[in-house]
Amino acid sequence: MAGNSFGQLFRITTFGESHGEAIGVIIDGCPAGLSVDLDYIQGELDKRKPGQSKITTQRKESDTFKILSGTFEGKTTGTPIMMLIPNEDQRSKDYGHNVDVFRPSHADYTYFTKYGIRDHRGGGRSSARETAARVAAGALAKLLLKTQGIDIVAHVSSVGRIDAPNVFISDAEQFIAEREKNIVRCADPATAEEMIEFIDSVRKDGDTVGGKVSCYIKNCPVGLGDPVFDKLHADLGKAMLSINAVHGFEFGSGFSGSEMRGSEHNDIFIKNADGEVATRTNFSGGIQGGISNGMPIEFKVAFKPVATIMHNQQTVNSEGNSAEISGKGRHDPCVVPRAVPIVEAMAALVIADHWLRNKTVRLD
Amino acid sequence: MAGNSFGQLFRITTFGESHGEAIGVIIDGCPAGLSVDLDYIQGELDKRKPGQSKITTQRKESDTFKILSGTFEGKTTGTPIMMLIPNEDQRSKDYGHNVDVFRPSHADYTYFTKYGIRDHRGGGRSSARETAARVAAGALAKLLLKTQGIDIVAHVSSVGRIDAPNVFISDAEQFIAEREKNIVRCADPATAEEMIEFIDSVRKDGDTVGGKVSCYIKNCPVGLGDPVFDKLHADLGKAMLSINAVHGFEFGSGFSGSEMRGSEHNDIFIKNADGEVATRTNFSGGIQGGISNGMPIEFKVAFKPVATIMHNQQTVNSEGNSAEISGKGRHDPCVVPRAVPIVEAMAALVIADHWLRNKTVRLD
Amino acid sequence: MAGNSFGQLFRITTFGESHGEAIGVIIDGCPAGLSVDLDYIQGELDKRKPGQSKITTQRKESDTFKILSGTFEGKTTGTPIMMLIPNEDQRSKDYGHNVDVFRPSHADYTYFTKYGIRDHRGGGRSSARETAARVAAGALAKLLLKTQGIDIVAHVSSVGRIDAPNVFISDAEQFIAEREKNIVRCADPATAEEMIEFIDSVRKDGDTVGGKVSCYIKNCPVGLGDPVFDKLHADLGKAMLSINAVHGFEFGSGFSGSEMRGSEHNDIFIKNADGEVATRTNFSGGIQGGISNGMPIEFKVAFKPVATIMHNQQTVNSEGNSAEISGKGRHDPCVVPRAVPIVEAMAALVIADHWLRNKTVRLD
Amino acid sequence: MAGNSFGQLFRITTFGESHGEAIGVIIDGCPAGLSVDLDYIQGELDKRKPGQSKITTQRKESDTFKILSGTFEGKTTGTPIMMLIPNEDQRSKDYGHNVDVFRPSHADYTYFTKYGIRDHRGGGRSSARETAARVAAGALAKLLLKTQGIDIVAHVSSVGRIDAPNVFISDAEQFIAEREKNIVRCADPATAEEMIEFIDSVRKDGDTVGGKVSCYIKNCPVGLGDPVFDKLHADLGKAMLSINAVHGFEFGSGFSGSEMRGSEHNDIFIKNADGEVATRTNFSGGIQGGISNGMPIEFKVAFKPVATIMHNQQTVNSEGNSAEISGKGRHDPCVVPRAVPIVEAMAALVIADHWLRNKTVRLD
Repeated sequence: MAGNSFGQLFRITTFGESHGEAIGVIIDGCPAGLSVDLDYIQGELDKRKPGQSKITTQRKESDTFKILSGTFEGKTTGTPIMMLIPNEDQRSKDYGHNVDVFRPSHADYTYFTKYGIRDHRGGGRSSARETAARVAAGALAKLLLKTQGIDIVAHVSSVGRIDAPNVFISDAEQFIAEREKNIVRCADPATAEEMIEFIDSVRKDGDTVGGKVSCYIKNCPVGLGDPVFDKLHADLGKAMLSINAVHGFEFGSGFSGSEMRGSEHNDIFIKNADGEVATRTNFSGGIQGGISNGMPIEFKVAFKPVATIMHNQQTVNSEGNSAEISGKGRHDPCVVPRAVPIVEAMAALVIADHWLRNKTVRLD
Repeated sequence: MAGNSFGQLFRITTFGESHGEAIGVIIDGCPAGLSVDLDYIQGELDKRKPGQSKITTQRKESDTFKILSGTFEGKTTGTPIMMLIPNEDQRSKDYGHNVDVFRPSHADYTYFTKYGIRDHRGGGRSSARETAARVAAGALAKLLLKTQGIDIVAHVSSVGRIDAPNVFISDAEQFIAEREKNIVRCADPATAEEMIEFIDSVRKDGDTVGGKVSCYIKNCPVGLGDPVFDKLHADLGKAMLSINAVHGFEFGSGFSGSEMRGSEHNDIFIKNADGEVATRTNFSGGIQGGISNGMPIEFKVAFKPVATIMHNQQTVNSEGNSAEISGKGRHDPCVVPRAVPIVEAMAALVIADHWLRNKTVRLD
Repeated sequence: MAGNSFGQLFRITTFGESHGEAIGVIIDGCPAGLSVDLDYIQGELDKRKPGQSKITTQRKESDTFKILSGTFEGKTTGTPIMMLIPNEDQRSKDYGHNVDVFRPSHADYTYFTKYGIRDHRGGGRSSARETAARVAAGALAKLLLKTQGIDIVAHVSSVGRIDAPNVFISDAEQFIAEREKNIVRCADPATAEEMIEFIDSVRKDGDTVGGKVSCYIKNCPVGLGDPVFDKLHADLGKAMLSINAVHGFEFGSGFSGSEMRGSEHNDIFIKNADGEVATRTNFSGGIQGGISNGMPIEFKVAFKPVATIMHNQQTVNSEGNSAEISGKGRHDPCVVPRAVPIVEAMAALVIADHWLRNKTVRLD
Repeated sequence: MAGNSFGQLFRITTFGESHGEAIGVIIDGCPAGLSVDLDYIQGELDKRKPGQSKITTQRKESDTFKILSGTFEGKTTGTPIMMLIPNEDQRSKDYGHNVDVFRPSHADYTYFTKYGIRDHRGGGRSSARETAARVAAGALAKLLLKTQGIDIVAHVSSVGRIDAPNVFISDAEQFIAEREKNIVRCADPATAEEMIEFIDSVRKDGDTVGGKVSCYIKNCPVGLGDPVFDKLHADLGKAMLSINAVHGFEFGSGFSGSEMRGSEHNDIFIKNADGEVATRTNFSGGIQGGISNGMPIEFKVAFKPVATIMHNQQTVNSEGNSAEISGKGRHDPCVVPRAVPIVEAMAALVIADHWLRNKTVRLD
């Protein structure tokens, strides 16, 4: 209710601040009997952690997690799974100079006004550091979905105005392998190079830039999603919009679909080579009436540029008087390469939740 | 849990199918003591109802509602409010010819596969008729918000590729008055004319077209929204994506924000003329860190073209064999004029819910 | 959240006041494909309705229900099921004389103080009339459970200080048949006669008396219940305590179990005649660690005497000044015969909910 | 949903097994600005911890907790509060001999059958060790309620058939001081002595015995509780029934109220010495229509005897074959002295939750 839980049957609750002792998550509702591949989960965390490359923030966190409950001899037991990620490089002193001013386009002002108290050591709870807990929980959800053959892959499809062409790699492992060959996590090598160069120039300017992440969910069974409010794309949209810096979400034909005519946009049903019902086009993005239709689920997420820049900026302080904020500390010129595992994680949480929910809708 | 409820503290549950006896909604959690203006609620329903003009569907429904519980002598009592809207023009025979085939880009196939049963009289539960219940409940939420001075206004900002310029009418009543002067519900008269002409030509083609609705929430207090998952824009996004035919949502700078640099995008804090903290620009769309910051909340919703067209289309039937679907019956060439009150209603439900939630976050 | 919903996956929301136009319920989450036996549901409502016999209230309500959504050709479709029960004999004028005084041991004072408004036409929402909606929904839950062979039966085991002996009728239909032979709904005929005589004498005194209902759930599979908070008996307890006039709940050995030693109380595991694990005794009441163990689930519910009596009583009015309340109108000398179907209904709702929940706990 | 969360607005989620690395709790929804008295919380944990006296189990756990998030400079910040309690004396080897058999009246059989996997090191998640997390969270709830002057006190009112007389100590601190003078936590010194002697004799027999805890909530404002399902006593009942070994709950007149007549049982409203509305008697137990009426809230909780005894017992193993279980290890002859802080904690969680919920029910 207070906003720190997500999901109904596969439900997570995260906790922790960027400069506290630890962050973490409880997963309640993961089915019993799932083998927990710790290396896989750590690998997902490693893709999100800071300090991976020259184009991300230099904060040093190994993001090493441990599981304190809910597993026994390598398997889930059906009881709540607690994953803890200690904070290592807290360096709250870095932020000391900005204690009393509201950083532009950060959450300082809104948190202070809402709660009447402010943990001024960095972003506190509003920091994107919280998303590490989501990645850990999402990795578990992905392991669950893998037992059903469901794959979730994402990559950076735009940085600023640089857009990648559509990538046609149907195999999930191969897609990820290709994407992981470059530090910007774009599955198109030529575009990746251009993006990296651009981010690096932005970084040198002490500035930041936004971008987009595209995500594909493959082999999702027909039937996931609960109309009328918990439509599959509505829950995916909420999941994505809850990620720091996200300003937009679209699925299937998305915003451009609003410019089309019905006669172009309708996805004609066919029987495919395997004798299954499919559609000729996929403007529906794999979801019709809020329920997955067996086609690949496709959506795109827009990230605004990170607010922390290395420039001096005008602002006000907690008395409402004007003040200047100086651009010191660490900064992350472009968040989208590190956002890829977060988008996948949140998608996995939604799909795992609806996969469980779908088990109860029919009397067999 | 089964998807027919929305909201936490101001919570609605809708019911009813397009060709059943009635649709309706229970509102649980509306504070006691609110005066219920029945005419206002009916007025909102009238904006959504079919048959309003030549550019909407010709189904005839008066959408007359009645309240069966939860009010006493014109005021809410704190108990659940049940609003019932009988169906009048059911004409399920119109649909008889399509009983066994899956209409392209409708929910027939996914509902049938998920539930194993299909109410083939029109869209059943997946029909946009269900949104009448939302409009009724949202109208009550708007009445609640009006007691706090909060206004919610929306209009059609695009039809197909025709985009309205930004409209600068700060007074909510005046904005609505302007918008209601034309049947397409665009607050810019010149664009409205162009849109109407275009929709009419699409209608004559037996085709449909998508569009966009822009929404503005004014005088929203600072502090609404519950990080980290129930960010105000995440809940708004889910609300909008749960509306039939919506394929995209963006707030503030939205998708175009992903192309900007931080130094352009950051909203500089200032003290405004009233001595309050404000921001010079509003790329944040009135929400920072998931919490309203007192600036106008701005978002945009993309609607795909309606799937029902008057053309013959290829498809498959419930055995998976190919079939043809003929374009008979009634059709709605462009849904966005009728979507305006739905967008406002869903926004009101989100804001009312978070306004109530915000009452509990501080120990005063 | 506002208290008018119950259950997680098989979830009901009730609405309506005793003197409004109607009461009713939405059931969200009933699996698709269940045959809806309307006569069975009406039969359950008939057991709860007023005016059944000389020992219940003389208010006349046929409690005829209708289903407005969620079924198609006699089966549930997976969409929300709305059941409406119009009020017929409202006679709010009967209550006119008590408009401004707080009736002793009623909810008048607490509702007025909480909500600041009071529907003085009888109990409004606090009236036990609301339980008709529960009985309708519970009857549907029972139909669902019958498909799994699960039976729920209850009877009046005490009225005042008159206690029935344990009844050993293992067949559910036969138990109910026996119970329905008398107007007090006690499965022991000799005790029933004594109870009826006693209630009738209490009625003539213009007084009321309490009693107890015992309930048995048979053929419940092993595994229902979700520790640690949603233990099966905890949810049953909440369900029972939410019924008007209930002041106590115990299961298995109950209060007397607190006087026993572990060596007496432990239920020894055995292999039964069918080769299944069972227990020699059933002090656990069919539930261990919050999860059903396959033995009959047994619990008892204590009802206080109804507050409306035909005597004059001292009280205060809404200004806090002393006043007298006169004993006019209709009264129900003993609520427990009519409580039997309510207890069964609430039990069915809990079991149906946990039966659905249990479908998601293991990875098979 | 999976059962490990409790509360709506003041919501806790617990995790951890008796023989894992740690147990703990996340509290989501505690208002910002509450001073966190760490010593008070530790003091509450100390009252529940094992090894306190000769009449409790000898497992050694200091139950030292730490807070990992949600506070800043000694105050709550409105973000989730994570409390961790490491396990120290795990000694899982003690349980090695019972790995494959189902201990009578424990949760071994039901957990194994439900989840298909069993953490055989002691009770795993079903162990009462989990209640330490509840006590920590409940202590925080009590601190919140103290800011409103609300006091919650409990004591052992029965052990086996030894019942304490009613205790008339209206001051909460004094009541607790009296109770804490003896190791059985009964506020009546003479009865306490008798109880202790009895428990000690039971302990020497290698046996266990049940008992009852009575709880009083004082200075609770009028208005807490949300009809019709979330009645205050229904939520208190569920809270209590969710505690290990509880088999019964009653409030106000309770089970004996079912033997009374309405004319005796009705609580006559009066204006009290302070000019406030009160009742002459309190058979309603401080709650009418599910809403607190300002009188002391009174309820009683029945605990069965602990299942672990030092006798050999017949049982079956996981193949369903008969086996013997030997009475080795540590045992707790009577759980009720340690249950006192658990009952208080759960009551505090319910009251805190409804106190927050009550902030949203009226439009002022």
